[in-house]
Amino acid sequence: MEDKYFVSVIGASNCSARESKLAEEVGRELAKRGAVVICGGLNGVMEAVCRGAKSEGGLTIGILPSNNRLDANPYVDIPIITGLGYARNSIVARSGQAVIAVGGKYGTLSEIAYALQDKIPVIGLGTWKLATSKSKDESIVIANNASDAVDKAIESIRQGVKNGFH
Amino acid sequence: MEDKYFVSVIGASNCSARESKLAEEVGRELAKRGAVVICGGLNGVMEAVCRGAKSEGGLTIGILPSNNRLDANPYVDIPIITGLGYARNSIVARSGQAVIAVGGKYGTLSEIAYALQDKIPVIGLGTWKLATSKSKDESIVIANNASDAVDKAIESIRQGVKNGFH
Amino acid sequence: MEDKYFVSVIGASNCSARESKLAEEVGRELAKRGAVVICGGLNGVMEAVCRGAKSEGGLTIGILPSNNRLDANPYVDIPIITGLGYARNSIVARSGQAVIAVGGKYGTLSEIAYALQDKIPVIGLGTWKLATSKSKDESIVIANNASDAVDKAIESIRQGVKNGFH
Amino acid sequence: MEDKYFVSVIGASNCSARESKLAEEVGRELAKRGAVVICGGLNGVMEAVCRGAKSEGGLTIGILPSNNRLDANPYVDIPIITGLGYARNSIVARSGQAVIAVGGKYGTLSEIAYALQDKIPVIGLGTWKLATSKSKDESIVIANNASDAVDKAIESIRQGVKNGFH
Repeated sequence: MEDKYFVSVIGASNCSARESKLAEEVGRELAKRGAVVICGGLNGVMEAVCRGAKSEGGLTIGILPSNNRLDANPYVDIPIITGLGYARNSIVARSGQAVIAVGGKYGTLSEIAYALQDKIPVIGLGTWKLATSKSKDESIVIANNASDAVDKAIESIRQGVKNGFH
Repeated sequence: MEDKYFVSVIGASNCSARESKLAEEVGRELAKRGAVVICGGLNGVMEAVCRGAKSEGGLTIGILPSNNRLDANPYVDIPIITGLGYARNSIVARSGQAVIAVGGKYGTLSEIAYALQDKIPVIGLGTWKLATSKSKDESIVIANNASDAVDKAIESIRQGVKNGFH
Repeated sequence: MEDKYFVSVIGASNCSARESKLAEEVGRELAKRGAVVICGGLNGVMEAVCRGAKSEGGLTIGILPSNNRLDANPYVDIPIITGLGYARNSIVARSGQAVIAVGGKYGTLSEIAYALQDKIPVIGLGTWKLATSKSKDESIVIANNASDAVDKAIESIRQGVKNGFH
Repeated sequence: MEDKYFVSVIGASNCSARESKLAEEVGRELAKRGAVVICGGLNGVMEAVCRGAKSEGGLTIGILPSNNRLDANPYVDIPIITGLGYARNSIVARSGQAVIAVGGKYGTLSEIAYALQDKIPVIGLGTWKLATSKSKDESIVIANNASDAVDKAIESIRQGVKNGFH
């Protein structure tokens, strides 16, 4: 499995139809480029991105909060059973070389925070906007659509590898 | 130890002199009202809030990321040794009945996200401002100064207890 | 709080009357010597050791697996809310400068393993016996009764401090 | 990926030549039967089992303690970056439908304890022997060699699935 990319896709288990469609497209695009999809393993955005990836023959990893592998959505190839509850969010964020956020609630926000803390690039599709008390925080790279998000994620990984990051 | 409150105070280990002064005042005010201070146990805001609490005879808990109790700042009474790295942030957030955020970087943002996900009230002193792609998120209660932050934290705990929350 | 000791007491939430009595005595002896009791915060051995400690005015910390502070037994002064499930066992083990094991099932075994891995002394009262495929492992120090266990725990901490361990 | 098995293989990062050879054989046998190998991702037994699995075209998952994907041994296909230190042991144990222990030190003992607590079958090759204060604990199924261990692991998964366990 040479020249493989690992991209975490994050978003709510309870998402809009538009977000679900977007996540599915992200999954398809990632699989087409040979990227492994990592996610939280549950429903909503997580299920949609896995479904998209599987429709293009991709590989999907689901990092589950519970102690039960049956909680994985049907498109997860490899369930990782953490039993950590939502503390597993830090693992989802860190296991990607880049993170794509589709919409998202507070769980997604915690994953964005962990990724940015670890200097992992975060690409946003209709997700959180951050600001400190003094100024905007523009660390999240805004993408225009699923294909653009995947381009930006993979480009950021290539840049990182070139600069000695993993 | 009757009628005790548990308040988590979060903020960066590398903070400004102004934030440090503010955190120390928060610590003093919490101790005066009999609240136990919970924090991440390290320096910066964490050390300042513990120093303030100890100056008024309060009790301080430091939930350390490392495996080494010597990493606790000198004002921590009870070090909790997690060895979890920054995944311990979710424990810091959840162990408070309310959270006061003083300034803060991405680690603080992850703690705010965990607290809001668990419906724990978050009081902000010059901290993150949140917005989704559609609208502002005004879940963080803005405080004007240390004393106001502590008033708001304790009032929110009382309201929560009244409503059947912890 | 000078010259304070932190001792973790581990054992099953479902224990025999004899183990409960033993744990309560361990709690009383620890409190008499000024040691802070750390435990998993639930019932059985954990509740008994906290009850014993409180009867002598000690301080008790309960490191809960769940996300709910109401799961703490009534003798816990400071509940730490991990939300990590039984992965919190490593925190219970590591937060003590010594560990006393009273009986115990597989959860207790995981805590013993974590403590020994971190070179934290483990004192046993009717607990697991370990052997590798080649020989007995006599790392667990066997105690004869509650008072002996507490003596051995505190002596091991003093030795550790003298030798530069914490 | 139909009828897939997930087997965690555990053992020390610092192991004997004999244990390394045994682990490599376990990896080969697992891959031949289409089982995905899950391990802690580091050296010693973990590297040997991954090397064996890759020599037969298997798929390998490494659940790393650190925050750095470069810590994975070269035979890990999918690194999971936990940043949890040795608290990641519970995830290694639980992510398998069965666990094979090759030799092992205290870290391995913690993984055995977590697996048995969750009723995940544990197959032993020269690993820990357990006893309570009252009697032997024979929960670890002893295997005679690598092929026997893999047979027993897969048979135990099949039995579990038949009985409604996952």
